[in-house]
Amino acid sequence: MSPEEFRRRGYELVDWLAEYQTDVERLPVLSQSCPGDIRAQLPPSMPAQGESFDDIFADFERIIIPGITHWQSPNFFGYFPANTSGPSILGELLSAGLGVQGMLWLTSPACTELETHVLDWLVDAMALPSTFKSASEGGGVIQDSASSATLCALLTARERATRFESKEKGVEPRLTAYCSTETHSSMEKAVMIAGIGRERLRKIPTDEVGAINLKALQAAIADDRSNGFIPFFVCATIGTTSTLAIDPVADIGRICRRERVWLHVDGAMAGTASLCPEFREMHIGLEFADSYCFNPHKWMFTNFDCDCFFVADRFELTSTLGVLPEYLRNRATDAGEVIDYRDWQIPLGRRFRALKLWFVLRHYGLDGLQFHIRQHIKWAKELAEIITAHADFELLVPGSLNLLCFTHTNGDEFSKRLLECLNEAGAIFLTHTTVRERYCIRFCIGQTHTEWRHIEHAWNEICRVAETLE
Amino acid sequence: MSPEEFRRRGYELVDWLAEYQTDVERLPVLSQSCPGDIRAQLPPSMPAQGESFDDIFADFERIIIPGITHWQSPNFFGYFPANTSGPSILGELLSAGLGVQGMLWLTSPACTELETHVLDWLVDAMALPSTFKSASEGGGVIQDSASSATLCALLTARERATRFESKEKGVEPRLTAYCSTETHSSMEKAVMIAGIGRERLRKIPTDEVGAINLKALQAAIADDRSNGFIPFFVCATIGTTSTLAIDPVADIGRICRRERVWLHVDGAMAGTASLCPEFREMHIGLEFADSYCFNPHKWMFTNFDCDCFFVADRFELTSTLGVLPEYLRNRATDAGEVIDYRDWQIPLGRRFRALKLWFVLRHYGLDGLQFHIRQHIKWAKELAEIITAHADFELLVPGSLNLLCFTHTNGDEFSKRLLECLNEAGAIFLTHTTVRERYCIRFCIGQTHTEWRHIEHAWNEICRVAETLE
Repeated sequence: MSPEEFRRRGYELVDWLAEYQTDVERLPVLSQSCPGDIRAQLPPSMPAQGESFDDIFADFERIIIPGITHWQSPNFFGYFPANTSGPSILGELLSAGLGVQGMLWLTSPACTELETHVLDWLVDAMALPSTFKSASEGGGVIQDSASSATLCALLTARERATRFESKEKGVEPRLTAYCSTETHSSMEKAVMIAGIGRERLRKIPTDEVGAINLKALQAAIADDRSNGFIPFFVCATIGTTSTLAIDPVADIGRICRRERVWLHVDGAMAGTASLCPEFREMHIGLEFADSYCFNPHKWMFTNFDCDCFFVADRFELTSTLGVLPEYLRNRATDAGEVIDYRDWQIPLGRRFRALKLWFVLRHYGLDGLQFHIRQHIKWAKELAEIITAHADFELLVPGSLNLLCFTHTNGDEFSKRLLECLNEAGAIFLTHTTVRERYCIRFCIGQTHTEWRHIEHAWNEICRVAETLE
Repeated sequence: MSPEEFRRRGYELVDWLAEYQTDVERLPVLSQSCPGDIRAQLPPSMPAQGESFDDIFADFERIIIPGITHWQSPNFFGYFPANTSGPSILGELLSAGLGVQGMLWLTSPACTELETHVLDWLVDAMALPSTFKSASEGGGVIQDSASSATLCALLTARERATRFESKEKGVEPRLTAYCSTETHSSMEKAVMIAGIGRERLRKIPTDEVGAINLKALQAAIADDRSNGFIPFFVCATIGTTSTLAIDPVADIGRICRRERVWLHVDGAMAGTASLCPEFREMHIGLEFADSYCFNPHKWMFTNFDCDCFFVADRFELTSTLGVLPEYLRNRATDAGEVIDYRDWQIPLGRRFRALKLWFVLRHYGLDGLQFHIRQHIKWAKELAEIITAHADFELLVPGSLNLLCFTHTNGDEFSKRLLECLNEAGAIFLTHTTVRERYCIRFCIGQTHTEWRHIEHAWNEICRVAETLE
């Protein structure tokens, strides 16, 4: 593709995306496709001859768009917001065009240094412990997802634990990890991947609102110790996936410190709220954490993937994940003067993800980010009041930040049918979970282009469809 | 950012990238930055107020660009090509703008179905075994990198092996994995991550050209069996990182079949060449493989990240990596009618990466891709002849596809100094490796915009600088 054609096609796509941002609210949020619909429209083999971009783009609009569930719609209230924004998309565009590999400092110094720098910015902006800053013994790195961050933390903790414990010949130390029944599923995946085994993950029960039960955690650790297991890792959650429950980090931290157990704190979506001083209570005790992560790709206007992962001791992380073959050696690495992020993550290669994050932080500024977060949380509170006041609905979890969980008083089956009808109609999109064994609808507010009118409209739709179902 | 501003800024960046594609060949390939140079120019904290895009973009040009090592320069001959292209960049732009999550079929059916479909296209286009097609019991998925693909293969093999072997109480089966001394470092990382342990990875010696020594492999497996270990995984490489050596897949495959050991084949860069029938010899025996991967983000004009990973039995993969919490359940998943790619990879979330790959395959067509690959290989052959004819240089590995490894006859120290001078001058970029304990310069041809004149110029530079050093 010549530079001239690239320019022309680039303009076309920029135009299309500018219009998409406005038009997307009129599209069905959930794709109306049935399994196989998309593939049925695609030819069985790749073209022998190159095709014109007109043809490719026409198929994009005709075949692909109807198969899209519009995460960027202001009417998307499902799962979590995967919000993106103008500056983020533009940052990703530049990153794709530069096409640099950030595996080593040498392979693009700016890719590494900008990443270290903006992660330091975030430590200050969110008032995270200074042990996570690069000037200390710790530091931050961008991972693709909180799943990978949790895995890196777990692996580092495993290495630390097995280094401390003398290995009997041929018998691995029997490690045990802890989380709550509400912890994200990536924790279960991580213990499987790390070879600890799913059966060695203790899922501790939670209290009424979904936070881990401290006494049960302590008892489980004590019980395991007395049975010859070696407790080595606890994952605490700031904002569970189901209900945004907050585990008591300070109390868990004290237990971990006493027991010499790694504490990882997962603040995937909710962590972003700590940009506002009034929502920082959830982070009390974070100074006990060995590692922490949150996802700008959820609620901070930065398109997936962008998880910020911080460790208090970067040497433990890099000595776990580091491998240095001859073909990657270079003077800067050998001198130990630089960060080589390949040793902070699972894969070797890495994109220049800091660029979009830098664009977002500078475009919005701290004030701008705070403004949007406060607005989302305020709207959630207002909607919670409306739900509470409505005779047919019950709020199952007291409002927490930007997520509401509610159910219809006609019961689980009805609520389930309500959700399905709403999603199939396409005007809005919501997802579900179970709370205290009751089916409930999740309403998560955080899309870049969501305004109060979208929330009002969504609530009216919920009420209207509920009435038609009765 | 308003749609109007997004449009205006988008145009600016598209213009910039169109010019970059032409101008990049005049920039120093290796960044001239010293450690800390970039950070020294960045303010210590994020801005309180949002900034104008003019300011942000000015800093991008002033601070970031000098810190970039230009992987997209036609004078980049280091490591491996991380080549991108117009259609790929445009696909990534759309993907960032749509901002969809492909973790489940439901969360964007087109994201899943297009991926399955183009990976099927590639099986046919590259004449890979039909067991890798989705109509069989296998299938393909896009991973971020070959490192992650190898890890997923290893984990699946580990689960299969431990399922077959009865576990004694508290004693894990002592698994052993095999690769060659030339296998990519991600293999060592994978056995560490999976909890197998680096000491259980047998690095088998290679022959003169860097391919695994079959007898040594067989002996190591037999030896381990007789010592109570359980051999479970072999990684064969199609094109090693150092010298592009090809392991004999068919012979290894027969051993694996007999020993009931998982065979993973890593074709990261070289695999792309199999788009041309005349280079398919390297894939003979691939029907023995349980899994295979190659990277369109290396030599197929698709920007990082895009690794294509194929398995012969998708059920084994998904039963290893699958986790299904309540909040991810949905009708399509429960009915088993769809692929949910979250169960084919380490993280949960995933970008819409198939879009850029689809754009590339359609823009170039099979003929177009073959044309460029043949050209790169022909140029490598021509350069090999020039090197062989030159009295001061020695080709250490007979030309193989698009990579040449050579050294100066003045010895290791001289060759090392030559490489450093060349890279520091910035006109071209090359990297090094060791072959039979000799330092050697790698010259890898595969950049999107590289023409024969760039290769000629690079060779002239090498000769010129070598003369100044003598």
